[in-house]
Amino acid sequence: MRLTSFTDYALRVLLYTAAHEEQLTTIAEIQKTFDISKGHLMKVVHLLSTEGYLHAVRGRSGGIRLGKAPEEINLGQLVRLTEPDFRLAECFGQENHCIISQFCKLPGPFNQALDAFFETLDGHSLKDMMLTRDIFGPTVERTFPQRGSSFDLGTETV
Amino acid sequence: MRLTSFTDYALRVLLYTAAHEEQLTTIAEIQKTFDISKGHLMKVVHLLSTEGYLHAVRGRSGGIRLGKAPEEINLGQLVRLTEPDFRLAECFGQENHCIISQFCKLPGPFNQALDAFFETLDGHSLKDMMLTRDIFGPTVERTFPQRGSSFDLGTETV
Repeated sequence: MRLTSFTDYALRVLLYTAAHEEQLTTIAEIQKTFDISKGHLMKVVHLLSTEGYLHAVRGRSGGIRLGKAPEEINLGQLVRLTEPDFRLAECFGQENHCIISQFCKLPGPFNQALDAFFETLDGHSLKDMMLTRDIFGPTVERTFPQRGSSFDLGTETV
Repeated sequence: MRLTSFTDYALRVLLYTAAHEEQLTTIAEIQKTFDISKGHLMKVVHLLSTEGYLHAVRGRSGGIRLGKAPEEINLGQLVRLTEPDFRLAECFGQENHCIISQFCKLPGPFNQALDAFFETLDGHSLKDMMLTRDIFGPTVERTFPQRGSSFDLGTETV
């Protein structure tokens, strides 16, 4: 069970941009900070701009800034936007050949589980997640803890 | 956001086997019924047998049957077993290079959302999902409705 790196990058772009609200941010700056693919990042910024999450200023000294207040950027709504699909089983997609599709009872609990997932995210906004500007800077000593759920491979929880 | 076809196939194997409890089931029979990859199916059956969900009888007239009562086969536990990981962001995995990992607040809501997802599935067993034997047979007239969540691409809900 995964979310795409598209969603991951969208969240990083918004966190970075939110922490640098006093100036315009550039894609190059975010790319350098996180050391992630520029092509991928451009697609993310394009979608977030189209959907009003970012405001893009064109020109030589252009860049991006948040298009909404951080408290108006809801995590659940964002992930619904950035994920390409929510295919928990073959019958959730358009290419469905499963012969028990019209009888199967599994979509009930799976759709409920998906709803519960998004209801949780719906309770949080970018404002709750904001980091200070210095965290993105070069002087911070960094560690790379695994932050996944405790039942995943027996690793540490948050 | 997806679950793997490994999980999908594991559920189909268990539904089929549960509906045919009066006899041994073969992989060939399940493969033919669902028209899915035999290699993939063998890996699924191997894991389910190793973990006690199936009981495999060896030999020429061998096959598989359920290794637990349907009410003891919990959906949440099963999906935790069959999914290879729960990587909602880079920092959930072992190859994590995200520079804000130790400061980021996103793992909180994401892990909560994952917990909510599994709590929902934990409330259901295979017994609630069981289908009758005739549904898998050749005489049933079939349709292939999309059973995914209503917010996915504007398609129909359950």
